[in-house]
Amino acid sequence: MAKPKKTPRPKAQTPKGFADYFGTDVSERTAMLARIAEVYHRYGFDALESSAVETVEALGKFLPDVDRPNEGVFAWQEEDGDWLALRYDMTAPLARVYAQHRNDLPNPYRRYTMGPVWRNEKPGPGRFRQFYQCDADTVGTASMAADAEICAMLADTLEAVGIARGDYVIRINNRKVLNGVMEVAGLAGDDKAAERGIVLRAIDKLDRLGADGVRALLGAGRKDESGDFTDGAGLELFQISKVLEFISPDILTERSKTETRIMEDIEEGSGDESPLILSALKTLVGSSEVGANGVSELREILNLVRAAGYGPDRIVIDPSVVRGLGYYTGPVYEAELTFDVQNEKGQNVQFGSVAGGGRYDDLVKRFTGQEVPATGVSIGVDRLLAALRSTGRSGTETHGPVVVTVMDRDRMADYQAMVAELRNADIDPNDPSKGKIRAEVYLGNPKNFGNQLKYADKRNSPIAIIEGGDEKERGVVQIKDLILGAKIAETATHEEWKNRPSQFEVPRDQMLAKVREILAG
Amino acid sequence: MAKPKKTPRPKAQTPKGFADYFGTDVSERTAMLARIAEVYHRYGFDALESSAVETVEALGKFLPDVDRPNEGVFAWQEEDGDWLALRYDMTAPLARVYAQHRNDLPNPYRRYTMGPVWRNEKPGPGRFRQFYQCDADTVGTASMAADAEICAMLADTLEAVGIARGDYVIRINNRKVLNGVMEVAGLAGDDKAAERGIVLRAIDKLDRLGADGVRALLGAGRKDESGDFTDGAGLELFQISKVLEFISPDILTERSKTETRIMEDIEEGSGDESPLILSALKTLVGSSEVGANGVSELREILNLVRAAGYGPDRIVIDPSVVRGLGYYTGPVYEAELTFDVQNEKGQNVQFGSVAGGGRYDDLVKRFTGQEVPATGVSIGVDRLLAALRSTGRSGTETHGPVVVTVMDRDRMADYQAMVAELRNADIDPNDPSKGKIRAEVYLGNPKNFGNQLKYADKRNSPIAIIEGGDEKERGVVQIKDLILGAKIAETATHEEWKNRPSQFEVPRDQMLAKVREILAG
Repeated sequence: MAKPKKTPRPKAQTPKGFADYFGTDVSERTAMLARIAEVYHRYGFDALESSAVETVEALGKFLPDVDRPNEGVFAWQEEDGDWLALRYDMTAPLARVYAQHRNDLPNPYRRYTMGPVWRNEKPGPGRFRQFYQCDADTVGTASMAADAEICAMLADTLEAVGIARGDYVIRINNRKVLNGVMEVAGLAGDDKAAERGIVLRAIDKLDRLGADGVRALLGAGRKDESGDFTDGAGLELFQISKVLEFISPDILTERSKTETRIMEDIEEGSGDESPLILSALKTLVGSSEVGANGVSELREILNLVRAAGYGPDRIVIDPSVVRGLGYYTGPVYEAELTFDVQNEKGQNVQFGSVAGGGRYDDLVKRFTGQEVPATGVSIGVDRLLAALRSTGRSGTETHGPVVVTVMDRDRMADYQAMVAELRNADIDPNDPSKGKIRAEVYLGNPKNFGNQLKYADKRNSPIAIIEGGDEKERGVVQIKDLILGAKIAETATHEEWKNRPSQFEVPRDQMLAKVREILAG
Repeated sequence: MAKPKKTPRPKAQTPKGFADYFGTDVSERTAMLARIAEVYHRYGFDALESSAVETVEALGKFLPDVDRPNEGVFAWQEEDGDWLALRYDMTAPLARVYAQHRNDLPNPYRRYTMGPVWRNEKPGPGRFRQFYQCDADTVGTASMAADAEICAMLADTLEAVGIARGDYVIRINNRKVLNGVMEVAGLAGDDKAAERGIVLRAIDKLDRLGADGVRALLGAGRKDESGDFTDGAGLELFQISKVLEFISPDILTERSKTETRIMEDIEEGSGDESPLILSALKTLVGSSEVGANGVSELREILNLVRAAGYGPDRIVIDPSVVRGLGYYTGPVYEAELTFDVQNEKGQNVQFGSVAGGGRYDDLVKRFTGQEVPATGVSIGVDRLLAALRSTGRSGTETHGPVVVTVMDRDRMADYQAMVAELRNADIDPNDPSKGKIRAEVYLGNPKNFGNQLKYADKRNSPIAIIEGGDEKERGVVQIKDLILGAKIAETATHEEWKNRPSQFEVPRDQMLAKVREILAG
């Protein structure tokens, strides 16, 4: 037999655009997802974990004229000729699952799901080809109560993971209102599709360009700082002002106020501008049926969330929410974090959006031909986690395990008994909910004691425990407070250093008590 | 522009060999994994979540003479020519991660990981192409303390998820002892590779064929029930008896006992046969150095776990553990559940193995050329979950959410206020750890009240709440105890039915109290 060719050593490298997550990066995410799941579950949503792999057809990613799957998915061909692919979001698999199991599922069906999705896109800084999504959807009901419920649930969820009330706001808009505005601005109809496209793209740039930039794009066009010119939609002035009114809540509410139109549902002095905005939107969409319909849907949602106790500090109507308007068919909603963070340039900017969603009605139709109304939200898991970290609210584990060092290789059994004693003990005997003590024995070569302390340092250990032959004989252990030790080493004078020892000798049977004392800070 | 060809409706179907998991199937697994992670973390293991996608080279699944990836993995070619694949286990990615990040990781490195893996295999009943693995490994130490620690941790883990002490046993063996037996049986050396292969395969069939079947396969060969003949290894009688002694703990301990060889570390009457087995194994491997080495490794592990308080009811030495012997280089261990379950034929059989692992030393060598000792365990997540379910210990959620029905579509706000009140309330005001009440409002078409009760039934709801116009006026709600109702409907006489109402009218402000009372059973 010929010797097989020797393969070269493989590179130890994560594939481009993929990442590995270590330690607290993983456990903090897991903890956050568990808190989210608890709220979703309490709201009556059931967990779903569909397979990560779907047929390319089910994902809707097969181009009709091409015999290969669409861009954007990781796909491969089976031996029987079928193409399979990794899911690129959680909505397409929900559609497939609902169509497949609809006779066994409750109707309406509330489900949540959490897990990775994959995008076959060019990787870039901060752009990954695998990331987490966490979705909640209600399938099978056109009731606005479903949308209202998800907005309320989103507020509860943000507070459950640690975003304080006042640090976030859920903003709601409706695609139908925009359609109504298009109608009254004379932009309805198949022949105006191109203009509508420009309008949608312009609205999407409101954040970046401001109202003046959008105005230019809706009209003659816009020259940017580099001198490049973007063609405008060439709209008439009245058309431009309709669109601008729609996306500018200030204009809307000012107008409502100056017209002193008092709606029945506006409480004076309540500080709740959402009813004012609704009333202005109603005027704005004028005779458009779809527009009026959209406003009335928004009013229904607003009444429901207000009745459930979600005030304008948590949920508001905001027509400038444009994200995803093109995809959705009715209400759209977005959760924004309102506190400041520093961007790469060191400027203070609002943290921004961490979740978004809305109503989409053609979910299942592709499979069954039947239209099934649905509404749902997706939380940007990594962004929300980043937000929690930036505010120090992620419950970041600041310390590693207690490390029991090995002074005498032959007494490993003693050292393992020590870690077992610690691990089986509550951190706080008066509060078992704080969990048990995390502890480990050093498993490397124990010859060089310095290496053991370096290891404890790398593990970010709060405490090292030392029991050499001498200590064993005298029935004591040495306990090093590594946090205090590091602090003293950094800042203390020689005098302080002498007076504040960071190493304690205690009788062996008081080891646990001393460890607890140090861990309690 | 030519109209694109209309694509046919896609089939709503999970790809062959893949599955969707619903509701408690997901949440029970999540809860079990959280309990496992808590124990692993407490033992000083850090979480790792590597990317699901690896280069085919890193997985070691590139055949040297072929330009396509190996069978068994789902792989696809990138535009730049690289082949990527889904991970098929958690060990190959650990090797890649360790080689890539070894300078930043603590040494030794303890890590755990949980998640799906993918196998491109022919699907069959109960054989899935995506399933969960949950691994814990210690990389970078040759110390037997690492193996002992993992065996102890495995015992703690099984008890933490709900397997009672006495219902499981961790069995330990050592590949080196088998090698020693091969040596003294004259089966060492390159020219005996074929015989050794037959021996390994025969040992692997011990469970199924019994000692006699294995004896036949080691000797002249074996005719099975269908009359098919399998060639044997053609070993000499003394060789056969060496191998059989190795895999038959009864023979070993009997021999130890009859030889009345009292080892220093055998306590008489302790019921601990593991030291007896070790002593018999020592005799069996005779002058083989590797064999003696293996026995001494086992003795070290045994001493460590016994000193840490893990007795023979939890951890034993058992040379009949053969699983994976071919793959591992030193100690191997296996967790077996010892209670009976019924198999498909209705026979009582032991539940069997739910976890296994061992020491493997060529983990990182493929990447760096450097040998790195490692030992680790993998829990069969689905099997362990099935075991918990079969014993009713999975914490199975028996009921769905409380359902608030909709009697008057215009009063949705009232109904949402009800569910909000329930959701924000502890199930048991004296024990917040039991969580809050799960509740939902009916979101389907409320016209047909029967459909609402059918929905509650499908949701497995314990309670339905009804507030029509009449109730609203009188300030009361109707509370239907659906569990009691179903029980009564099944078994009660008409008399009992009248005397045990399952529907209660209570004042609106006592709704929460009554719901709590019913939920408390």
